[in-house]
Amino acid sequence: MKVSITLPTPPSRDYEIIIDELPSIEIEGKAAIVTNPKVAGLHLQRLLQSVKAKELYIVTIPDGEEYKTMETIEFMLDRFFDHRLDRKSTLIAFGGGVIGDMTGFAASIFQRGIDFIQIPTTLLSQVDASVGGKTGINNRFGKNLVGAFHQPKAVYIDTFWLNTLPKREFSAGIAEIIKMAVMFDADFFDWLEKNDLYEDSNLKEAIKRSVELKARVVNEDEKEKGVRAVLNYGHTFAHVIENFSGYGSYLHGEAVAIGMVMANDLAQEFGYFSTDESERVKELLKKYNLPVSYSIESAEKFYDQFFLDKKSHDNKITFIIPENIGKYKMLSSPEKESVIKVLKKFEKAEGF
Amino acid sequence: MKVSITLPTPPSRDYEIIIDELPSIEIEGKAAIVTNPKVAGLHLQRLLQSVKAKELYIVTIPDGEEYKTMETIEFMLDRFFDHRLDRKSTLIAFGGGVIGDMTGFAASIFQRGIDFIQIPTTLLSQVDASVGGKTGINNRFGKNLVGAFHQPKAVYIDTFWLNTLPKREFSAGIAEIIKMAVMFDADFFDWLEKNDLYEDSNLKEAIKRSVELKARVVNEDEKEKGVRAVLNYGHTFAHVIENFSGYGSYLHGEAVAIGMVMANDLAQEFGYFSTDESERVKELLKKYNLPVSYSIESAEKFYDQFFLDKKSHDNKITFIIPENIGKYKMLSSPEKESVIKVLKKFEKAEGF
Repeated sequence: MKVSITLPTPPSRDYEIIIDELPSIEIEGKAAIVTNPKVAGLHLQRLLQSVKAKELYIVTIPDGEEYKTMETIEFMLDRFFDHRLDRKSTLIAFGGGVIGDMTGFAASIFQRGIDFIQIPTTLLSQVDASVGGKTGINNRFGKNLVGAFHQPKAVYIDTFWLNTLPKREFSAGIAEIIKMAVMFDADFFDWLEKNDLYEDSNLKEAIKRSVELKARVVNEDEKEKGVRAVLNYGHTFAHVIENFSGYGSYLHGEAVAIGMVMANDLAQEFGYFSTDESERVKELLKKYNLPVSYSIESAEKFYDQFFLDKKSHDNKITFIIPENIGKYKMLSSPEKESVIKVLKKFEKAEGF
Repeated sequence: MKVSITLPTPPSRDYEIIIDELPSIEIEGKAAIVTNPKVAGLHLQRLLQSVKAKELYIVTIPDGEEYKTMETIEFMLDRFFDHRLDRKSTLIAFGGGVIGDMTGFAASIFQRGIDFIQIPTTLLSQVDASVGGKTGINNRFGKNLVGAFHQPKAVYIDTFWLNTLPKREFSAGIAEIIKMAVMFDADFFDWLEKNDLYEDSNLKEAIKRSVELKARVVNEDEKEKGVRAVLNYGHTFAHVIENFSGYGSYLHGEAVAIGMVMANDLAQEFGYFSTDESERVKELLKKYNLPVSYSIESAEKFYDQFFLDKKSHDNKITFIIPENIGKYKMLSSPEKESVIKVLKKFEKAEGF
């Protein structure tokens, strides 16, 4: 005997990203703002002027990637139950990527899923984490290995918060913007070369274009079975760099900047990228004080590290490289010799 | 500035429930069977004859509702990472409701969601938990408060496993079957009166009809915003009974049986149910040795307890009652006096 279970099409999960001064936000039910002590100290007062809810609670969690754990999720859930949030309540993520990823994950499992709103306060989370619905935590096996796909109800991007952002973190966000341009949009890259992102109106425009590009990718491949992997341009190298340098010596965006330079060299090695293009990308990264050089101790060791990454179990590796500026290419398991040849160039630090 | 995010329609989550001798199951990637030591001891050997996978692991977790916690989920996830399961791996839930709920929840958050298959081994989980996609765990605030909606890829219901099920647990499963008939299907109720569920072919038929009814409800209201609440017929009373008696003195299905009798009395009080109908339901419950009487110490205290349940925050309560056999009615915040009047009848134990 057999029963066929037909499930309803889930309601639309479409939402809007508002890139503007924070509008006033009215929430029908109860709400909890999740933030960390630093962001709260700097900006909570301003946020509270804009948020209205039936009941509003503030939950702060410790700042930093090392607290992106199930333990912190449980702490958050306990607070939500203490405050008697219910299925109609809304969470508001107010902070950087860690706050966004964890608040989204908590929202996805609290009473089997409630709404959440993103108010990202770092440039990186504004251009990156605010689109795509990836939420999660780290564990001892790696980063973001436990989580859910859970889309926000809305994202509010206000560049005002960035005024208190350390310069290095601002630049790390720019690296992700440049990444999007190199992979998907030659016009945008040209525009970035000509316009100064320290200028607020330009920055807003760049965020918008970046977010639009990411939205297109996510729309095509929400669950990362294909093209979404392109967003990892520079990341394969960056992960190894972060591993070797110890997390914390480079910001993620800085490691990605170096990783892009390496990926570009690999693209050149295979004839997909010109010296001129490599130089243009480097120049743009340098304009925002992003690192473009790195000293590899041993090319062989660096290479081996690709395969120790928990996510590649089968000794295969795909490099995401540009095919000229504005197009991507997936390079599946290139010959070791070619990769080593590229890595060897970094065996002694290049000058800036 | 504004960016509209349009998300793709998720792939169909439709699936089939096979009510038959377990067929052979071939899984392309890696798989892990999640079970408990008791079920494993009794039935794992038989299951293993039917399951083929690229790599197959067995993960056992302790038996019992008290282990339905985030701690056990983390234990499970750690084992999956130890065994290097990946995004293409499949979990197989092999056990009762606790195993199903937890395996489903773990599947929903492992690497942001992987497939899982249900092989329920208790009657209750075969008729109830196998449809609907509710997964989750308990915490100190209550039952099933943390979790996800995550649909299985397939459900295999084999009544063979029930041969080792204690009689009381078998009956507790029957209670849920009777519940479905009273709420939704007068013909099915008639059929249940005439056919003996200790007979395997009848049992299969009853499981099928029960599952079909539940599937219809879930299709209409997956996220429990309306009609799905009807499945709580008897449960409002049952939760109070379970609270007062301490979890464990009654099986859930037993408490639901008493709860149905109480709900029927309430329906009678409001003129929606006849004495004859009440008797018919009682007779059917008694046929399967389910309790139909209960001694309430104080009707007032019992009543107050409805509102201490964490899920009703606003002093409103909806009772699910039958409107004749085969139709449901939602009775929103009936006058206290009427409810007390019904409860008072239980203040001294009725005889069987």
